Amino acid sequence: MAQITVNIPKSKRKIISTNTISLLEILNRNEIMTYAPCGGKGVCGKCKIEVKGDLSNISNEEKEFLTKDEIKNNIRLACKTYVNSEATVELIENSTENKSKEKIKNYKHYKTNSRIIKKLIVPKLPSLKHSLSVTECILEKNQSREVEIGISVLQKISSSVDYNKELTATFYDNELIDVKNSNSTGNKYGVAIDIGTTTLACYLIDLNTGSQLAVQSLQNPQTGYGADVISRINYCIENKDGLKTLCEAIRNALNSIIHSICKQANIDSNYIYECILVGNTAMNHLFLGLNVKSLSVLPFNPVIKKLVTLNAKELDINQINPNGKVTFLPNIGGFVGSDTIGGMIAADLVKSNDNIVIIDLGTNGEIIVSTSKTKLACSTAAGPAFEGARIKFGMQAFNGAINSVGFDDHDIYYTTINNHKPRGICGSGLIDIISIFIKTGIIDSTGKIIEPKDVPNENLRDRIIKDGRKKEVILAYKNETENNIPISITQKDIREIQLAKSAVKSGINILLKTAGITYRDVDKILLTGAFGNFISKTNAHKIGLFPKIPLEKVFSFGNAAGEGAKMILCDKDLIDSALKQYLYETKHIEISTHPDFQDEFIDGMSFK
Amino acid sequence: MAQITVNIPKSKRKIISTNTISLLEILNRNEIMTYAPCGGKGVCGKCKIEVKGDLSNISNEEKEFLTKDEIKNNIRLACKTYVNSEATVELIENSTENKSKEKIKNYKHYKTNSRIIKKLIVPKLPSLKHSLSVTECILEKNQSREVEIGISVLQKISSSVDYNKELTATFYDNELIDVKNSNSTGNKYGVAIDIGTTTLACYLIDLNTGSQLAVQSLQNPQTGYGADVISRINYCIENKDGLKTLCEAIRNALNSIIHSICKQANIDSNYIYECILVGNTAMNHLFLGLNVKSLSVLPFNPVIKKLVTLNAKELDINQINPNGKVTFLPNIGGFVGSDTIGGMIAADLVKSNDNIVIIDLGTNGEIIVSTSKTKLACSTAAGPAFEGARIKFGMQAFNGAINSVGFDDHDIYYTTINNHKPRGICGSGLIDIISIFIKTGIIDSTGKIIEPKDVPNENLRDRIIKDGRKKEVILAYKNETENNIPISITQKDIREIQLAKSAVKSGINILLKTAGITYRDVDKILLTGAFGNFISKTNAHKIGLFPKIPLEKVFSFGNAAGEGAKMILCDKDLIDSALKQYLYETKHIEISTHPDFQDEFIDGMSFK
Repeated sequence: MAQITVNIPKSKRKIISTNTISLLEILNRNEIMTYAPCGGKGVCGKCKIEVKGDLSNISNEEKEFLTKDEIKNNIRLACKTYVNSEATVELIENSTENKSKEKIKNYKHYKTNSRIIKKLIVPKLPSLKHSLSVTECILEKNQSREVEIGISVLQKISSSVDYNKELTATFYDNELIDVKNSNSTGNKYGVAIDIGTTTLACYLIDLNTGSQLAVQSLQNPQTGYGADVISRINYCIENKDGLKTLCEAIRNALNSIIHSICKQANIDSNYIYECILVGNTAMNHLFLGLNVKSLSVLPFNPVIKKLVTLNAKELDINQINPNGKVTFLPNIGGFVGSDTIGGMIAADLVKSNDNIVIIDLGTNGEIIVSTSKTKLACSTAAGPAFEGARIKFGMQAFNGAINSVGFDDHDIYYTTINNHKPRGICGSGLIDIISIFIKTGIIDSTGKIIEPKDVPNENLRDRIIKDGRKKEVILAYKNETENNIPISITQKDIREIQLAKSAVKSGINILLKTAGITYRDVDKILLTGAFGNFISKTNAHKIGLFPKIPLEKVFSFGNAAGEGAKMILCDKDLIDSALKQYLYETKHIEISTHPDFQDEFIDGMSFK
Repeated sequence: MAQITVNIPKSKRKIISTNTISLLEILNRNEIMTYAPCGGKGVCGKCKIEVKGDLSNISNEEKEFLTKDEIKNNIRLACKTYVNSEATVELIENSTENKSKEKIKNYKHYKTNSRIIKKLIVPKLPSLKHSLSVTECILEKNQSREVEIGISVLQKISSSVDYNKELTATFYDNELIDVKNSNSTGNKYGVAIDIGTTTLACYLIDLNTGSQLAVQSLQNPQTGYGADVISRINYCIENKDGLKTLCEAIRNALNSIIHSICKQANIDSNYIYECILVGNTAMNHLFLGLNVKSLSVLPFNPVIKKLVTLNAKELDINQINPNGKVTFLPNIGGFVGSDTIGGMIAADLVKSNDNIVIIDLGTNGEIIVSTSKTKLACSTAAGPAFEGARIKFGMQAFNGAINSVGFDDHDIYYTTINNHKPRGICGSGLIDIISIFIKTGIIDSTGKIIEPKDVPNENLRDRIIKDGRKKEVILAYKNETENNIPISITQKDIREIQLAKSAVKSGINILLKTAGITYRDVDKILLTGAFGNFISKTNAHKIGLFPKIPLEKVFSFGNAAGEGAKMILCDKDLIDSALKQYLYETKHIEISTHPDFQDEFIDGMSFK
């Protein structure tokens, strides 16, 4: 084992490490976030970096994923590159060293029924006659018998209470969680965080007014250890300190995002007293540091379903008040977590007699079917295909990603994020592409790319490239792209999308059947999630992502999980409802083992 | 500041420290316990050690307290001695490097109604259909909604549950505090600890059977920072890290005593799930790390009265199960703490219509008067005199302490602890001495030592030594003692005892008056506490420690505080009773500011 040096000019860092771990691992450990969907196994080819220096030889995996031009230009796969002594890394834009910032303009107002209560008190010097404790001088005598006080607040009371001076006491329900020697009743904040498999969304709320002050998003740093929940679970099982590593990564990310949101809104993080978290069960377990082995084998049962409320410091969350509370909302079962509960709360399902389908498509996908009689939920691992992890030129929705594709009766056209030269294709682009391929006859109803000569529109025939029996369709020619490499969709890519869309559709159909209704009975489909929220309803419909329900019944629903988390943060009574009306009443269906699944799955592949 | 070395052959230690702190401070910081009643101010002369090496010059304080022989024999006061480079310390027996062990033979049995419940469970693999969480497989489904589980137990469940294998779940009331992969239902223990100002008493109880398995005592290491609560409070106020130092000292002592009691009883400390603590309010605050400033000024109000239950790890108690609970019972007010509540529980006051007086005499003294109509409590700082801190030859009850004194019509005789050659006088000896001095006419009714010629018994006349106007009475001549120094009682010593006994008696009288009764109405006096429990009732009566109540109404009551703590440990229902029937119903009287106090105090001085 030798000591090595890695220079990263872009982030002005010089990292000292050892030659026994890959560059990907070095970047991960130093919280320089990279995109590594397969978690470093060398099978996805996505963790490309530009690196010069004293390096290990090009591996067989790299030979498979890198073009000759790329190799010439010092592009390597971070997961298969080791530094012998010293190297300099240029992060290419796929790496997300720069935190992306989502800014939502319509800052909403929420109910102001917070668990956090602040009281202004002027404690009086107790008389000898009454023999009160200091605590009894702050609280009403009888109240002080009921109120809970932790040791650190007791210690603070013991050293800081001044008689006859203003003091602000802060309560979380029945617990006194802070005392401050001034009037700070105006400062009372909370954060709601949706821990997505790929992206964290953080919302800062003023609990006095119910207004949303700021919103920030940040890539989930666990992405460097695998794109989807399964690869992260495997990482934990295969690596001795895997759980610890992923747990620390997400906790650090939470601290980091809360720190920046406070900076953005110019508030003191010490006045944040509550944090509501939602996420799928894997995100829940990894954040809480729970061993994920029970999620890795049938029947995929989580360690715990009920909600968990802990002191911030027990979870190493140091960017809110030290006695603030962190609540991770409850898990439904399998991989269906509290993000789904958040969505159900946002949709206010309990007040509706309609038959509603919620499709939450992120890296992990969840489906809910709610009728007046029952609530059912399942999860599907559809995300990684849509998010590009298993697609040759797939990428996340960063600059240069092709995000929409159309056909103007003459040729295919596309747009990219921020009009950068194209570098890859993101999820909404993929849905459009398949829809256009169907429309223009480039693929048949089984998903097969047809012979170029059989494509009706002559202009499109040149886009189909054959390499022996393998076919692919060029979307952006070499001269159009950022890296001078043509961007194409392969037959294998189309198969991946077919599998993914069929998984979603099968999930919906099995839940509808279990609920005793058909797609004709559905009153509303709500599309939500990091990906579901941005796709073209029409094209998603066209490729058969959901059953043939009239488009006017399909709605984009924003980030429902985050919305639900905010509602719970602002209205303490919703917690009870979350438990009683959603958690206890929702039945989790493990669709992969459902007897109808295989039939549905095979049926769902077709583009008919 | 220079580095210095201190060798302590007796405990085989070589300590590296600096020349800026006294030898007393060095010994304290290294947990080598010394007896330093004044807390290192150089005013008590008790922290004698034998030390050779490169030392600071003899200070004026040492010249006052050390005889020429002592100085010749390398005896120094640890608090006023500084090491210049290297020194070797011989701890003389007054130092308590050796932990004293109290062994009680009549091992009692207590009620078995513990808060700790253990259940043997064989969790079944959940079916796909029911979609249970791992936690729901361990607990009943409905129970799992109610039970509280901390993060560390959740983590343990996540990594250790094996289906179809025996598992022991341990509950503290409604909280799941441990899971273990075997049948450990037979192992369920608790400790009750009386944190005395001078001595800790620790009791180990089998919570399955209610039997007491072991008992241990240990000197309170805070003794090195002052004998009484006032000097320790001053230490905290005068020293920047004073509170931290005393807090760590007592927490370490608890760990140490629990460790040894487990070793003594041969049980695994991981099976100790509950720890009940009692002590006066200063002990309570110092253990909990609460700033003691409110205890240092009128109206001497404690920070908190109600009981405090915390996880062991929050208090750095690492010698019980990490999720075990530590409960410090509630404070009544002023310096009257939970030890008094323990005493009231042990005396079962609530079931009695008698007029009862409890006198708890330790370093801190508490008095309770209980009638069918009221319960009153006060504290007196009588202890330090009785425990020898302010008495020239006073010492604690270690080997060689004169512990009883008599008169056989011919001369005075004495016994010592373990028949060692006398080294000093402990509390019970002091009470006897005063009683004998009254009986034999050595002192008059005002406490004054009379002229030798006026003493009726001729044999005793030689015992009175005059040095100018100062008189003292020899108890053990030079040739009888350990150090070849005669052991005597000075006029000043007698005054100290007069003040102390009058403080106790005044406290009793004021409480009786406040309760609306006189000493004639008292049905029972219970003597308890480290010192109260060992004195001669007759002699205490003779010197006027309590009002003239017939001796048959006076009872020795053992360590009532510890007894009450054990009862609460074993019977969860008693906590409620402790709060409702004792804490809330007992009125604390601050006697030092009571309008009748000065009259009572002056009256109480006399030996009439």
